[in-house]
Amino acid sequence: MQVYVIGLGHIGLPMACFIAISGKQVIGIDNNPQVIKAVKNGSINIYEHYNGLHISKLAKKLIDQGKLTVTKNLRTIDQHPGVFIVSVGIKSSDDFKQDISPIKEVMDTLVPQLKPGDLIIFRTTLIPGTIDEHVIPRLESLNIPVYLAYCPETMAETQAFQELNNNPIVMAGKDEESFAKAKEFFNSISDAPIHKASNIKTAELIKVVQNISRDVEIALVNEISVVAEALKVDTYEVLNLSNTHPRVKLLQPGPGVGGYCLPNALVYLKHTLLKGKNTDIPLSLMEVARKSNLDRPKKIVALIEQALKDVNKTLEKSCIAILGLAMKDNCADCRYSPAIDIAKMLTEKGAKVKGFDPVVGKKFPFQVDTLQECIVNSDCILITAVQPGI
Amino acid sequence: MQVYVIGLGHIGLPMACFIAISGKQVIGIDNNPQVIKAVKNGSINIYEHYNGLHISKLAKKLIDQGKLTVTKNLRTIDQHPGVFIVSVGIKSSDDFKQDISPIKEVMDTLVPQLKPGDLIIFRTTLIPGTIDEHVIPRLESLNIPVYLAYCPETMAETQAFQELNNNPIVMAGKDEESFAKAKEFFNSISDAPIHKASNIKTAELIKVVQNISRDVEIALVNEISVVAEALKVDTYEVLNLSNTHPRVKLLQPGPGVGGYCLPNALVYLKHTLLKGKNTDIPLSLMEVARKSNLDRPKKIVALIEQALKDVNKTLEKSCIAILGLAMKDNCADCRYSPAIDIAKMLTEKGAKVKGFDPVVGKKFPFQVDTLQECIVNSDCILITAVQPGI
Repeated sequence: MQVYVIGLGHIGLPMACFIAISGKQVIGIDNNPQVIKAVKNGSINIYEHYNGLHISKLAKKLIDQGKLTVTKNLRTIDQHPGVFIVSVGIKSSDDFKQDISPIKEVMDTLVPQLKPGDLIIFRTTLIPGTIDEHVIPRLESLNIPVYLAYCPETMAETQAFQELNNNPIVMAGKDEESFAKAKEFFNSISDAPIHKASNIKTAELIKVVQNISRDVEIALVNEISVVAEALKVDTYEVLNLSNTHPRVKLLQPGPGVGGYCLPNALVYLKHTLLKGKNTDIPLSLMEVARKSNLDRPKKIVALIEQALKDVNKTLEKSCIAILGLAMKDNCADCRYSPAIDIAKMLTEKGAKVKGFDPVVGKKFPFQVDTLQECIVNSDCILITAVQPGI
Repeated sequence: MQVYVIGLGHIGLPMACFIAISGKQVIGIDNNPQVIKAVKNGSINIYEHYNGLHISKLAKKLIDQGKLTVTKNLRTIDQHPGVFIVSVGIKSSDDFKQDISPIKEVMDTLVPQLKPGDLIIFRTTLIPGTIDEHVIPRLESLNIPVYLAYCPETMAETQAFQELNNNPIVMAGKDEESFAKAKEFFNSISDAPIHKASNIKTAELIKVVQNISRDVEIALVNEISVVAEALKVDTYEVLNLSNTHPRVKLLQPGPGVGGYCLPNALVYLKHTLLKGKNTDIPLSLMEVARKSNLDRPKKIVALIEQALKDVNKTLEKSCIAILGLAMKDNCADCRYSPAIDIAKMLTEKGAKVKGFDPVVGKKFPFQVDTLQECIVNSDCILITAVQPGI
């Protein structure tokens, strides 16, 4: 059985490696030639480790061993029946405009090449309803027996290999046979328990709901932290002791919410509601949480401004060292990273900003190469993500 | 060692019984003569069971065995050193006006009678700062060595005996010796692990934060349930499958939030912030959650109205059966119960309402005596709390 993993990003590449490790032959496909090049020469910058080995080295090793092939070409699928894992996401701009063309493009190239018995598994977060609207009609028009399942990936970045093997999978099939085929496939590569959703739209919604609930939890803990500070009570003591109760599980406060999934989740939900003409459904709690998380970097900037003022300094004449530019700890992902928002705001307000992150690679003009270079002569050190070496 | 439990409500009575069972001599005190009478004659209506025995029977048995004495008189404390557990709460009206006079009254009577070595343990939810402001100065004015600790009770009503024995305790002492004395006491009656908070205000805040976080979680799941219904997706499937993820723990939707603790928690927090002149602390998420939970009964009424309309009926000409009047399942507590709010709103809108609850006792004019009497000839059956026998 040939496995194709389409999209070699934060989800796709770990998955391709994970499946190859399990002993299956994997072809990884990404339409970005730079991604293909970086995977091939062992320089891809995703922060995952398998048994201590960085994923860039792991992928190269699997390629050298002939277990994994990577290519930008989805145009020559010649081994059937195949398992096609689609981990291509929806495109989302800085202002949260959604563009599902990547999904359509995959379908444009894949569908004409499908043969009876092929199994397609979408393993990406989608706007609920996407599969029903954009995928199933195209497959049905083929008029050949092709299987389709949807199961979102819920792993935490940096924990990919452990979570791919253990995290429970929520999955729905286009029909019973599709579910059975996809289940058989997952059972052959991992120990993860599989939970059946009654239809694909429900499974799509579940992923969005999981992300939104996390977004709300983060907003809540940040709000609590502001209260605790105002009351001159130790925030971490309040949180840690609150969590000694078996029914309380508060997260830790932070500089905001980044990464792809959480900031986009509510937008996905709104798209779905709008499509179903459900314009009057109140999302007040989710909206407030989202707004609060979006505003959090602004609050961090205000905190810095106040801290400088307390020692008779101004932002304009200060140099701020930002340590950790990724969207969260131990992570190479800078998408929607609050650290970057904070850097931008500080710069706009006239501060000098130096950023250091040993994991994310050189991406921003204000980045420096060493921790020492970053903090020397700084008036304020802001730790936005705890990375190895920080 | 003589133990006094002051306040024999939902927290105090189970605690008095729990301590008496452990082998200590307990005097339970409540200034409400009806409570004393009901405890004495085995008719108190709190829904707790110890080894299958209803608390009313248990308390009577402990009294008969001479292990528990109950009295309304706090004026003749003659055995020292004593442990005084104060489980008298703040009074709160229907419109959430707080009145801490019950705490002051206890102090008025208790303080003049204290002797060196006495230990006072407040075991109730307080507005953070209450002990520092209203209790400690009075004890210090005594100028004798008296110990003081604060540890909120976090047990779920109906689970009192199990949770009193197992739930971790967050506790703070007025000083190290107070903490040590109180810890020794709890270790002598239960297996509950004890976590030390660095000061009493922090411990008070922790309880309020725990309650608020629950309030937010409930608002979130109710919001999700409205979304799922609008999308014609099974709410319970979404929630149950979302919860298969190890980092997701959504609650179940319901008719609103009742009981004493949760509806009052945010008001307590606001009192504290106001007292510290922290008027500009944003509580937007907590506020939206609270409002959403307060509005929930109104939404249930709208749901009923729509359901009746769908079958060409109107509220004015309909009879609504409400099953379960307590603030939640398996519970006798009707304080701020959403079921009662719903009954009131339905009645105001001209509906005929019959309510049934086998646990709460006869308290409301619209209550009937049997399940059958409640549902016969009803146009709509609303289950607001699942009670034994419903």
